[in-house]
Amino acid sequence: MKRYNDIKWRESMRVRLDYNKMTADFLTGEDAITKEQLSSYQDKVREAAVSMDEKRKAGLMKWRELPYNQQNVVQEILTTAKDISEQYDDFVLLGIGGSALGPLAVNQALNHIYYNDLPKSKRGGKPRFFVVDNIDPERMSALFDIIDVRKTLFNVVTKSGSTSETMAQFLLVHDMLKRHVGNDYAKQIVATTDEQKGSLIKIAREEGYKTFFVPDGVGGRFSQLCPVGLLPAAVCGIDIEEMLAGAAYMDELCSTHDVYANPAYMGGLLQYIAMTSGKNITVMMPYADSLKLMADWYAQLWAESLGKKYSLDGQVVHTGQTPVRALGVTDQHSQVQLYTEGPFDKVITFLTVDEYRNKLEIPKGFESLPDVAFLGGQTFDDLIKAEQNATEYALLKAGRLNMAIRFPKVNAFTVGQFMYLLEVQTAFEGELLNINAFDQPGVEEGKEATYALMGRPGFESKKKELDSREPNKDEYII
Amino acid sequence: MKRYNDIKWRESMRVRLDYNKMTADFLTGEDAITKEQLSSYQDKVREAAVSMDEKRKAGLMKWRELPYNQQNVVQEILTTAKDISEQYDDFVLLGIGGSALGPLAVNQALNHIYYNDLPKSKRGGKPRFFVVDNIDPERMSALFDIIDVRKTLFNVVTKSGSTSETMAQFLLVHDMLKRHVGNDYAKQIVATTDEQKGSLIKIAREEGYKTFFVPDGVGGRFSQLCPVGLLPAAVCGIDIEEMLAGAAYMDELCSTHDVYANPAYMGGLLQYIAMTSGKNITVMMPYADSLKLMADWYAQLWAESLGKKYSLDGQVVHTGQTPVRALGVTDQHSQVQLYTEGPFDKVITFLTVDEYRNKLEIPKGFESLPDVAFLGGQTFDDLIKAEQNATEYALLKAGRLNMAIRFPKVNAFTVGQFMYLLEVQTAFEGELLNINAFDQPGVEEGKEATYALMGRPGFESKKKELDSREPNKDEYII
Repeated sequence: MKRYNDIKWRESMRVRLDYNKMTADFLTGEDAITKEQLSSYQDKVREAAVSMDEKRKAGLMKWRELPYNQQNVVQEILTTAKDISEQYDDFVLLGIGGSALGPLAVNQALNHIYYNDLPKSKRGGKPRFFVVDNIDPERMSALFDIIDVRKTLFNVVTKSGSTSETMAQFLLVHDMLKRHVGNDYAKQIVATTDEQKGSLIKIAREEGYKTFFVPDGVGGRFSQLCPVGLLPAAVCGIDIEEMLAGAAYMDELCSTHDVYANPAYMGGLLQYIAMTSGKNITVMMPYADSLKLMADWYAQLWAESLGKKYSLDGQVVHTGQTPVRALGVTDQHSQVQLYTEGPFDKVITFLTVDEYRNKLEIPKGFESLPDVAFLGGQTFDDLIKAEQNATEYALLKAGRLNMAIRFPKVNAFTVGQFMYLLEVQTAFEGELLNINAFDQPGVEEGKEATYALMGRPGFESKKKELDSREPNKDEYII
Repeated sequence: MKRYNDIKWRESMRVRLDYNKMTADFLTGEDAITKEQLSSYQDKVREAAVSMDEKRKAGLMKWRELPYNQQNVVQEILTTAKDISEQYDDFVLLGIGGSALGPLAVNQALNHIYYNDLPKSKRGGKPRFFVVDNIDPERMSALFDIIDVRKTLFNVVTKSGSTSETMAQFLLVHDMLKRHVGNDYAKQIVATTDEQKGSLIKIAREEGYKTFFVPDGVGGRFSQLCPVGLLPAAVCGIDIEEMLAGAAYMDELCSTHDVYANPAYMGGLLQYIAMTSGKNITVMMPYADSLKLMADWYAQLWAESLGKKYSLDGQVVHTGQTPVRALGVTDQHSQVQLYTEGPFDKVITFLTVDEYRNKLEIPKGFESLPDVAFLGGQTFDDLIKAEQNATEYALLKAGRLNMAIRFPKVNAFTVGQFMYLLEVQTAFEGELLNINAFDQPGVEEGKEATYALMGRPGFESKKKELDSREPNKDEYII
């Protein structure tokens, strides 16, 4: 039996939202949230919960079904991942945004912190893992200094099949493979894209690449639990079935309408209350290097879903908190001064870990120096937990809203839970804000301007618009 | 002659602030800054500029002299760096906050993007470079899976000589070296700390470590241009003399009282105007992977210096913008939706590069697919510049304050300029805000709570205070 089918184990691995330090029972000052405040949102919460259910039923949140319907492709992914591991030294994902952030975060969470620096034998025979999520010419060419294209599998990931950054990378890789590998190059490319639409699927079919599909109706930032995220995870040896099981478990926990029992709804409501009282910044601060990139993944999810100009009824709202990524304890020496003494403009969400994968003793030494000696004989586990605890306490004393999402351990099951939890919370927040959490109209202007500047046919009038801009003035350049 | 002594070359390598898109000449909407607005701050700017000069003369800004007085230790640093390169495979810096962020940013800016993944021969014989800036037990122990302690030089960096995180790491490394290397272990440790005070200098003298000093009056976040930053940079083959020359050049440029000619003062004034009109978020968005970590370095500098509860005259002000780190073009697919459509609560500062170290052609292909084919025959350099330009344009059309710091190239000279520019700007902003930009009282509570929880002698009453806390309530844990 898989451990995640054991009810006791699942319960012991439940990821929980702890919002004690958001409440007036603990926090003093104007920002503290009272029970009365929470219950005053009763009707709004009920409406949002009903809308969540209706949209799910209407097929408007297809990402919610991924923990169930992706079981179908798991076997194919595992087989492909095994083949890749056996044949290649390096696995390079070409993708950006949602195609990159989830895979990066999951690898960081569940593999060795210095995964790529390990010898292949210590990586369980798995290939090194690179995500190329920018088009910086220096970085692009640097990649080829450290990989051997003949021994590399390239996974091209774009749902639309035409993301400029990814397709530019693809053109480069395609050309290099043809030159260095010859006719067989097609087997070194796996395309993950829409099954019907877009240029990449056409190319893949024409050239005979292995393909995986982003299910219809699943947007980039909600795509971690489909092949976009599952294939790279599987290639790096991560138990993707357990990750999906974690997501399914969290789906159960997030299905109740009772906001006091639903971590996603309560998390969303608390952020909503904070936001409407002026907290336009939301900090995610994991106390674990393994969870560091989860904050980056979350930053896209929250920012792109909720940063919107219009409400669903067409009002101009200019809404959205700005997500900030921090890392404990590191950023105690960088950001916490601001968090405790600066403006009352943020909510801090810690990610904590009850049981790290090891404790690691701090050896004794230098007994005559008390400011060093007190550390000896304790563990790094003690120290990081004490510091998290201390930071929470310092924020509380300074009257700062803070809460925690607590991982019993970091494993595929808890990571699956966590990501699904945040996805539901984001969608729910979209309901509270009455906006569309699933589009991104604000990036169109920039995309079109890029097309125009790059001379893409069909964007001639935008090009004219850009060419008619007044040039920058020297007086404003120092 | 060193190239940086050539006046023409220096001028061609000048880092510039371009604030066209902050002004009412370009930007429409309420946030646009008018010439009248700028000149209305004339008196305030003059006062702040006078105060900057006075404080410098009074020895209250000793970091300003580093470009000059560190010349004395450059030779010793270079000699030590050469020895280290010849003897060791890996260079590990143990430090946190200002001891870590500068060295990380400079290595990322000036070395190969995948520096550690290169074979040693392609790194010019230099050691790999690791910065251990957290105490996560998993990460700490993972480090020893990939380095051989017998072939590693450890640089322990803490100005106070008692930073708990760094000293805990030191205790671990000290013990491992003693066990694996034996009596000679002391030559594998270099201490960078205060010359007089603290435990680390005592230990270093007792045990005979090589030492470098953080000059008196130079705080952690202003310490990149002393041995804290110079030694690791030199070990990784970076031209530290050119970096110091760049800083000295920027010092000249930032010495005028004329805000229209002083990039640091104008940068500070613009942020001040934006902040006082509600922009509590400041985004730094480099369009270059090489400059990615400069945003992290800046985030500490800005947050810790300016996030303050009290003004210099004792008023409660709770001031400080929250710095946000983004990366172009990557975060166009994550944050730009929010930046263009969300609240009018931020200023965006791009870091741009006129001439990347290469251009890299995008090969032609797939001529029948226009949304892919238009990219072929152009370069990644064209594409990243078009996207930066397009994002600037989209923000402008959306009425969003944005400016740019423009690097002619990324090299030691421009990096030295940039860091010095931001340091002066931060100090100047402190003057405008009338706060102390050089302390960090807000982290004391957390430090003391950590000491108490870890049982450090002398913190018994704090321990009692912590022990008397009400425990978290189950009803607030979902």
